[in-house]
Amino acid sequence: MLKLFYAVNTCALASHIALQEAGADYETARLDFRSNDQRKPEYLAVNPKGRVPALVTDRGILTETPAILAFVAQTFPQSRLAPLGDAFAFARVQAFNSYLCSTVHVAHAHRVRGYRWVDADDAYAIAAMQKKVPQSVAGCFDLIEREMFVGPWVTGDSYTICDPYLFTLAQWLEADGVDPVRFPKVRDHRQRMSERSGVKTALAEELS
Amino acid sequence: MLKLFYAVNTCALASHIALQEAGADYETARLDFRSNDQRKPEYLAVNPKGRVPALVTDRGILTETPAILAFVAQTFPQSRLAPLGDAFAFARVQAFNSYLCSTVHVAHAHRVRGYRWVDADDAYAIAAMQKKVPQSVAGCFDLIEREMFVGPWVTGDSYTICDPYLFTLAQWLEADGVDPVRFPKVRDHRQRMSERSGVKTALAEELS
Repeated sequence: MLKLFYAVNTCALASHIALQEAGADYETARLDFRSNDQRKPEYLAVNPKGRVPALVTDRGILTETPAILAFVAQTFPQSRLAPLGDAFAFARVQAFNSYLCSTVHVAHAHRVRGYRWVDADDAYAIAAMQKKVPQSVAGCFDLIEREMFVGPWVTGDSYTICDPYLFTLAQWLEADGVDPVRFPKVRDHRQRMSERSGVKTALAEELS
Repeated sequence: MLKLFYAVNTCALASHIALQEAGADYETARLDFRSNDQRKPEYLAVNPKGRVPALVTDRGILTETPAILAFVAQTFPQSRLAPLGDAFAFARVQAFNSYLCSTVHVAHAHRVRGYRWVDADDAYAIAAMQKKVPQSVAGCFDLIEREMFVGPWVTGDSYTICDPYLFTLAQWLEADGVDPVRFPKVRDHRQRMSERSGVKTALAEELS
């Protein structure tokens, strides 16, 4: 059976929702970041990066949200979570998810994980990074709103693995100091996503 | 025909090499970052992100290195640049490339693109980021060397789209203040890659 390692309020929610939407048989294992579970030897044996998500499969362990999402879509093709037979359409899905992981998530991470990129005890530089987050995150969502979001779902008429990932990162807007009112398409998408049963179930499992 | 927009000494080299290795019929268009070509209206019409690479196809434009690499592998299956029929093996390829774009490239970018994450005129914070780059980039390559690189190619016996991407980012080690001697597998890989005809041709085209 698939097993998803996650922590609450992280990007692992995207993979969790995708497993739900795919109708996958899976179990979950929660890490507590406040207890630094992700740096403990037993978890580093699962994922040497010390991050979530990690998905245990019968073939081995997968990490990185875009890879896990594509794996779920390919493993459960009947769920139609990606345009699997069309290299160009699949690449558009991958490009959106790649932008989320390498640019949007990274912009957000400068608010709470600044120690990755400056000395952890450099309070001034840490604060300088935090100060920029509302602007850099808003710049990302402005591009998504204007140029990338097709509607009603991210890539158009079909719900894909882009949707749970955008929903997950859009959850962080308020905490990043960005008013979602500026991005009506993203805000409407977030609302519609929150009403899906797969999303409700994943969120309920994470908060239980 | 495919058309790749690139700039010299950027991650676009990975896509350029993949197009060569796939035997694709393509042309290239060079942007000069010193002239800020990537922010000019004619290029923003191609890629609103103002970044490279961008690949023009007869279906539309693709961005983001992991997406372009997977597109090349899927469009030219006879080149065997990815394990296309195996969702798990494909996800391992995607996971490696996702780590390169969202963690390794991002660590490197704090040396020259710090203005993305702090105010551009905050010289102290910009310098604080630059100071950490040798440590953060070395940390990434240490993980690649110890945990991720299988050998002789990134994922094992088969050359994949992971190889040109790793080669491209490993080109930046010295400039990032990291001695490649610390990573013998990565250094050996870089050397073997540099001897491949597709790599030589792509580099020659970019430097011509």
